[in-house]
Amino acid sequence: MAAKQNIEESSEFSPRFNDNGLIPAIAQDAKTGQILMVGYMNKEALDLTIKTGYATYFSRSRKRLWKKGEESGHVQKVEQILVDCDQDCLVLKVAVDAGQCHTGHQSCFYRALKKDSGKELEFIAEKTYEPKETYKK
Amino acid sequence: MAAKQNIEESSEFSPRFNDNGLIPAIAQDAKTGQILMVGYMNKEALDLTIKTGYATYFSRSRKRLWKKGEESGHVQKVEQILVDCDQDCLVLKVAVDAGQCHTGHQSCFYRALKKDSGKELEFIAEKTYEPKETYKK
Repeated sequence: MAAKQNIEESSEFSPRFNDNGLIPAIAQDAKTGQILMVGYMNKEALDLTIKTGYATYFSRSRKRLWKKGEESGHVQKVEQILVDCDQDCLVLKVAVDAGQCHTGHQSCFYRALKKDSGKELEFIAEKTYEPKETYKK
Repeated sequence: MAAKQNIEESSEFSPRFNDNGLIPAIAQDAKTGQILMVGYMNKEALDLTIKTGYATYFSRSRKRLWKKGEESGHVQKVEQILVDCDQDCLVLKVAVDAGQCHTGHQSCFYRALKKDSGKELEFIAEKTYEPKETYKK
């Protein structure tokens, strides 16, 4: 309990990685507040993000470091890194250009659950770029 | 690949729970855009959230369902549920009163990494309520 309180009140950054060595990081548009995407970082990705000032994640599917925008050019310039009370989640306040999702949308969260439906989604955003022209493979 | 594309372009809500049966859910203030906290939901918690209109999470430490605010009164009224491209993360747009973090802060993200420091945090928010008066145990 003392340890828990210490993590919450401390000014020492001690991010807690999960059993897979990862911590979730939410990318939020610093200007608009829009949540753009959620990625995962291992220690190396977090260190690179801090050192370079650009968001780098660990791709769970490709099992490798992945600088956001390395292929699309849609990078995330990190303005601020926030950490939550128990230090097991990060928020990155980022400056971005258009299109942060590989589907062509500004945000990965382009669908919402329809009211009074537990099953059906509605699209709440238009595409901001054509992914076929951006991703060549 | 077809399955992946289907998940991304489908209007069927098919949330993907992780190996522990959980999906992360980001609570975002519907009015201000502030990210308040990140919790985890199992299927039952998500179903209850949709059914009741109030955020219910699965507490990983207490290993039980937990209606946000059940003790503090600081509930989250859900206005909209968003899902990301691969449907493994949710955003809840919520209406809240003061103090969403048990530490007394409005948001769990009350600390930021200091510029040019990989180690030191600065407190970027004041407490909005006194937790000792709210949590009796």
